[in-house]
Amino acid sequence: MKTLSENKAFGGVQGVYSHSSEACACDMTFGLFLPQEAADGPVPVLWYLSGLTCTHENAMIKAGAQVWAAEQGIALVFPDTSPRGEGVADDEDYDLGQGAGFYVNATEAPWAPHFRMWDYVAEELPALLADSFAIDPDRQAITGHSMGGHGALTLAMGLPGRYRSVSALAPICNPSASDWGAKQLTAYLGADRDAWARHDATLAMRARGFDGPILIDTGTEDQFIDLLRPQALAEAIAERRQQATMRLQPGYDHSYFFVSSFMEDHVAFHAQALWG
Amino acid sequence: MKTLSENKAFGGVQGVYSHSSEACACDMTFGLFLPQEAADGPVPVLWYLSGLTCTHENAMIKAGAQVWAAEQGIALVFPDTSPRGEGVADDEDYDLGQGAGFYVNATEAPWAPHFRMWDYVAEELPALLADSFAIDPDRQAITGHSMGGHGALTLAMGLPGRYRSVSALAPICNPSASDWGAKQLTAYLGADRDAWARHDATLAMRARGFDGPILIDTGTEDQFIDLLRPQALAEAIAERRQQATMRLQPGYDHSYFFVSSFMEDHVAFHAQALWG
Repeated sequence: MKTLSENKAFGGVQGVYSHSSEACACDMTFGLFLPQEAADGPVPVLWYLSGLTCTHENAMIKAGAQVWAAEQGIALVFPDTSPRGEGVADDEDYDLGQGAGFYVNATEAPWAPHFRMWDYVAEELPALLADSFAIDPDRQAITGHSMGGHGALTLAMGLPGRYRSVSALAPICNPSASDWGAKQLTAYLGADRDAWARHDATLAMRARGFDGPILIDTGTEDQFIDLLRPQALAEAIAERRQQATMRLQPGYDHSYFFVSSFMEDHVAFHAQALWG
Repeated sequence: MKTLSENKAFGGVQGVYSHSSEACACDMTFGLFLPQEAADGPVPVLWYLSGLTCTHENAMIKAGAQVWAAEQGIALVFPDTSPRGEGVADDEDYDLGQGAGFYVNATEAPWAPHFRMWDYVAEELPALLADSFAIDPDRQAITGHSMGGHGALTLAMGLPGRYRSVSALAPICNPSASDWGAKQLTAYLGADRDAWARHDATLAMRARGFDGPILIDTGTEDQFIDLLRPQALAEAIAERRQQATMRLQPGYDHSYFFVSSFMEDHVAFHAQALWG
């Protein structure tokens, strides 16, 4: 593992690291904020999964999460959204290939050898963090924005017992039924929709739900709301009687100004589960 | 004036606007955060002047100021750091020309016709804001980072009565005696050092000081601290018996992670002066 940068921030350290990833068969970069408390021993960790076109960097500099994580004594990890590099397949569209991993393990060419973001986020990176940093693997929570909200929700439901809480900001809620999803799931996983089910938060909610609290915020003026389909997940949550808070926030759009506006709430929500 | 974007943020609106500037003889772009309270009438305003290479956008997305401004009911304005455009002179160095206006009115060729950032920030933009938005011109305060900290301090001392409070993060404190300053002041104002004096915070402090509170933070690990020369301003403040707080923050560097770490303090400091 290589340290690309470390900056003191909010009493702790905002680091950026790269490492050779086995899951993605390429070098991967991630951001990690460690609060001051990490100097004294392992701290809980909140995963932040980013959306289409993002790298590890966008949320790290724009979401304003560190101030609240420092207040709560929680680490933040910001993974990249896909494998990267010259040997890695890509597409000219912004919503497929590099920057658009969708948190799945691709089985189809040309994506299969590198696009294994599920394994990367679910297995490889958590092990690396627990080995190399003062992170408590027994106290993890997960959140994300847009495609990253999709990732957070599907990972949380797909790995029972792993995360104590899950939240999402403007998540893609029902990718099987959206142009933000059907195209990518077909490309990465093939046309058989059975393989898609665990990568669709609405279908996962119908199938098994989540054993913990859920918080989801979406702006009423989100310019992509028709692609996000919050109504599908809302219906599934209500049908399942799932413990959850879903909020439609008047006037907010899909931008990081929306994300940062509600970051305090989301970090406090996870802190309650992680420290409770 | 043209609205480039408006995003709801922290209950208010983060806007980006452009207008034809008379002072700079080109189109200029600025960011403006208006808190919710601006819907009911004029609110106080805190100016944030940015550093070398920055546009109006950097602090707007990375400094994390809006959350605290919203809490305090204060507007934030993020001007650009220089005139821009194809007809505007530039230099291949990052620290001269576009992105490096140094908040002066240039008198020397090729800079003179456009590089009038002092007049832009001191006169033209405040008038435009007071005319077009719910901003109270009688309650202004100013802050900035690096070159913007230099701008904030020199404008505050150069315009007595204008700002109720001034603060700075890692400001260039003594440009006459620094490679971040002597080069640019020579280029923009000529070799006569008398013309530089009001654009050097240390010299302005010696000459007249500021009629209000001052807060200055600099990181002990700031990689540019030799160029900033906080010791010169500290000495001048102490000699003058100027009301001020100067803090050296252990471990922090020159980055926006440093800026955002202390933004809560700076906004609270100005709020006390603006609402007091």
